Amino acid sequence: MSEADLIARIRALFPRTGDDAAIVGDQAITNDMLVEDVDFTRDVSLQLIARKSLAVNLSDLAAMGAKPQYALVAIGAPEWVDTAALLEEFANAARAHRIEIIGGDLSRAEKLVISITAIGEAKQPLMRSGARAGDRLYVSRPLGGSAAGLELLKRGDENVSYIQREFIDAAIRRHLDPEPEVELGMKLVGIATSCIDVSDGLSTDVHHLCDASGVGAAIDRERIPIFPGLLESGLNVRELVLNGGEEFALLFTSALRESELSAKVGRPVYAIGRITKESGVLLDGQPLEPRGFDHFAVR
Amino acid sequence: MSEADLIARIRALFPRTGDDAAIVGDQAITNDMLVEDVDFTRDVSLQLIARKSLAVNLSDLAAMGAKPQYALVAIGAPEWVDTAALLEEFANAARAHRIEIIGGDLSRAEKLVISITAIGEAKQPLMRSGARAGDRLYVSRPLGGSAAGLELLKRGDENVSYIQREFIDAAIRRHLDPEPEVELGMKLVGIATSCIDVSDGLSTDVHHLCDASGVGAAIDRERIPIFPGLLESGLNVRELVLNGGEEFALLFTSALRESELSAKVGRPVYAIGRITKESGVLLDGQPLEPRGFDHFAVR
Repeated sequence: MSEADLIARIRALFPRTGDDAAIVGDQAITNDMLVEDVDFTRDVSLQLIARKSLAVNLSDLAAMGAKPQYALVAIGAPEWVDTAALLEEFANAARAHRIEIIGGDLSRAEKLVISITAIGEAKQPLMRSGARAGDRLYVSRPLGGSAAGLELLKRGDENVSYIQREFIDAAIRRHLDPEPEVELGMKLVGIATSCIDVSDGLSTDVHHLCDASGVGAAIDRERIPIFPGLLESGLNVRELVLNGGEEFALLFTSALRESELSAKVGRPVYAIGRITKESGVLLDGQPLEPRGFDHFAVR
Repeated sequence: MSEADLIARIRALFPRTGDDAAIVGDQAITNDMLVEDVDFTRDVSLQLIARKSLAVNLSDLAAMGAKPQYALVAIGAPEWVDTAALLEEFANAARAHRIEIIGGDLSRAEKLVISITAIGEAKQPLMRSGARAGDRLYVSRPLGGSAAGLELLKRGDENVSYIQREFIDAAIRRHLDPEPEVELGMKLVGIATSCIDVSDGLSTDVHHLCDASGVGAAIDRERIPIFPGLLESGLNVRELVLNGGEEFALLFTSALRESELSAKVGRPVYAIGRITKESGVLLDGQPLEPRGFDHFAVR
């Protein structure tokens, strides 16, 4: 079964799974699993593992314009994990995001597995499906940093000494300790017509948004904001910015122009293109294929 | 850190995690993780793995008197798992329980990991904490079958040929394909003063219930209903009935007597003892120590 077939099958079996979170009454509920050696490695601190596990889920709530309230934390822990210490880190991370951990489960496992369910209030949820032809397409912050951080981590220190230390640290931090756009998501309620978080990469997530809305998009490459220092880094800027995952920026649409929208939310946001009636995504007039990470990738 | 210390730490860090499910507004939300080679082995069919994963969570909702409505399913799948087939089995299992799968996550993993979040309506949730001195202590169905089934599975066929085939099949089925007491849980709202599901074993779960209620219990051993055929099986009946986990029977308290209560819920339930003002659990006058499975066991 191809990847596209599997996604189609999932949508057919579970019709309500198409957004970043499910809506039940006034609540948005989302669920993400992180696995050792897939989503993180053992040499990352338990503090950062806990923070990122929570952040990934809060980013899904942010994409729905929800106010995070609660989380449930299920942990499958191998021998090397100090379970009590990991739980303390989850308590700290929850406190930092002003949410409460109300349940969970502990189990044994050979590799560390963390599954978080996050719940937030969403009286007027932002959906992927509301984009209209003519809307501007926005991204909430510069892209490419997280994927650059991952690449720099993989290369190891000696091979990157020619790149500025400040950029390296910032990119690695963006990858290991991402900040979900929770405040912005809540402010976009009533302003944005649709929203998604950039978790799989811009090229893939813009397709998710357009497919859900039954529209297309035309993006101006030069308007895409780039993570500071990336242009001078010698890394593959186009690849990292277009296809780099785990950015946790918001990608959204609105009829408002950039200056109006930035003023309304009290911070810069970046108009990178327009929503089109014709389906398909264009980058400077050329088709932009989805080349980011896909959660549903079939092995 | 000892097991007791870890549990105390969890209660201090996350004060709302003490029941079978967390209550948010009118909803009960619970979360359980099942891990290959801990909770099931690879030779169990994907159908039974999906059914049991859902059943374990629905039993938590049953213990709250909740009406199951939704689930989120996160799967970490290794190579040997046909992901599409597993998702079909989850769709079938959800249909059988009349709930909707509204979200989830797919990831790679070296061992199959399944984390389910189940959500149900619970306008008047049953809690562990409502038992009062003088209440009768009830169990919803005969015990020992699930643990017997696990033991029979481990022994393999040749060593159990002296036990009746019908009993073997029923015990293995009870272990691999448990039926959560969802209907009964809903009927117990307004009747039971407290409730928990027997997931860790009677001896442990009665302590959980008594500790949460600030009471004790006195159990008559001869009143505990025993899984049909177990007495004649040659297996260790006392151990399996008192300490066997994954029964998913309900353990609850009520002022009503057995005949009244059975009539009200339209099926037999079993009064096995009384709630006492004095803390501690007695079995035929002797202290009953918690010797069941503990999820929070520290390795």
